[in-house]
Amino acid sequence: MPRAMTARPPAPHPPEGEACHASPHLCMPEDSRQRAARRLAIARGHLESIRRSLEDPNIYCVDVLRQIKAVQGALDGAASVVLRGHLEAHVATAATRGDAQDMVDELMDVLKYI
Amino acid sequence: MPRAMTARPPAPHPPEGEACHASPHLCMPEDSRQRAARRLAIARGHLESIRRSLEDPNIYCVDVLRQIKAVQGALDGAASVVLRGHLEAHVATAATRGDAQDMVDELMDVLKYI
Amino acid sequence: MPRAMTARPPAPHPPEGEACHASPHLCMPEDSRQRAARRLAIARGHLESIRRSLEDPNIYCVDVLRQIKAVQGALDGAASVVLRGHLEAHVATAATRGDAQDMVDELMDVLKYI
Amino acid sequence: MPRAMTARPPAPHPPEGEACHASPHLCMPEDSRQRAARRLAIARGHLESIRRSLEDPNIYCVDVLRQIKAVQGALDGAASVVLRGHLEAHVATAATRGDAQDMVDELMDVLKYI
Repeated sequence: MPRAMTARPPAPHPPEGEACHASPHLCMPEDSRQRAARRLAIARGHLESIRRSLEDPNIYCVDVLRQIKAVQGALDGAASVVLRGHLEAHVATAATRGDAQDMVDELMDVLKYI
Repeated sequence: MPRAMTARPPAPHPPEGEACHASPHLCMPEDSRQRAARRLAIARGHLESIRRSLEDPNIYCVDVLRQIKAVQGALDGAASVVLRGHLEAHVATAATRGDAQDMVDELMDVLKYI
Repeated sequence: MPRAMTARPPAPHPPEGEACHASPHLCMPEDSRQRAARRLAIARGHLESIRRSLEDPNIYCVDVLRQIKAVQGALDGAASVVLRGHLEAHVATAATRGDAQDMVDELMDVLKYI
Repeated sequence: MPRAMTARPPAPHPPEGEACHASPHLCMPEDSRQRAARRLAIARGHLESIRRSLEDPNIYCVDVLRQIKAVQGALDGAASVVLRGHLEAHVATAATRGDAQDMVDELMDVLKYI
């Protein structure tokens, strides 16, 4: 439950040394943010090129399906970067902070979507 | 749509009246092309907003994961539009054209990715 | 249950020469049935061995997750066999029979689950 | 990397009070083991009934696909039980034990398969 987290104090983290003063919740490791952002930028460019290719009446369905799948693979890669950062910075340290149950509930919920 | 297809002679399709003269292969139905393009445009906008949100050091990992998943759902929707058009226009008519085995092999291959 | 299909007459198929006299709907190609059955039997054996391994208090979570995933891969394989038979015997011939729209609707519905 | 784990000492766990004396690695919480075993037993019964249904020449492909998918849903449920137990008992406590990096690497690897 992400809303329950809003009440949580800044906490003895983040471990990667990034600042998270302005936020009431756990903050994403900076390295994850930057790497995920780069991957999303690439996926967005790929997506735009597929959209443009659909203006060509000679485009073939199966080629479009393959391209869409490639973008989904890129998004899986971006999600993996984010998930790994979350596990390292927030989940593996949950017992230390005392919010293990909240973290696990939240993670199980979001993994349903992955 | 598919009704028109039953009467259609082996090759000279596409059914929606779009031109496919320049192509040696089957062409995507125009309606599928337009609807898939609209969905991809929306997904691209969503993706860009996630990428921008990653510039905020206070962003939370799990929120990013949820947003990425929403885009993947939108891409699934776009792929469904393309797949349905392909099944109606090309696969369901394959025996009539005589390329059923090729169409099935190709479809099985692309479905592995979906 | 494909309601619309129940009314359909036995139809000029199945192509693999199997008998389907007793059924009001399209029948599964015999080869698909046999190959899918073999794969399901193997998956069942694997599943039973995982279940037994859970009686060992020293079993490790991640090993169980890997084993469950292997069974899901085997079920994917069985589903692929069935899907391929369905595409070849029923979907690729749909325009010939005149039930293309029903077949595509039904397939899109079941592919959502795959 | 699960092999590295074999060298790990029994460690200050398991938290659910289950015994894990005989094992060099972390042990699955007993509650997870029992609940996962029950789910796998149900899935195995369902799988066996699908296999038997394939002896009927009048079985329809799409019905088989739906049944296989139902079993996969049951296996997803069993995997969720195991994963939750693993997160609670082993991942959330990793920083305390000092094996966070190994646990995260291993989890990311197994989640690829889920």
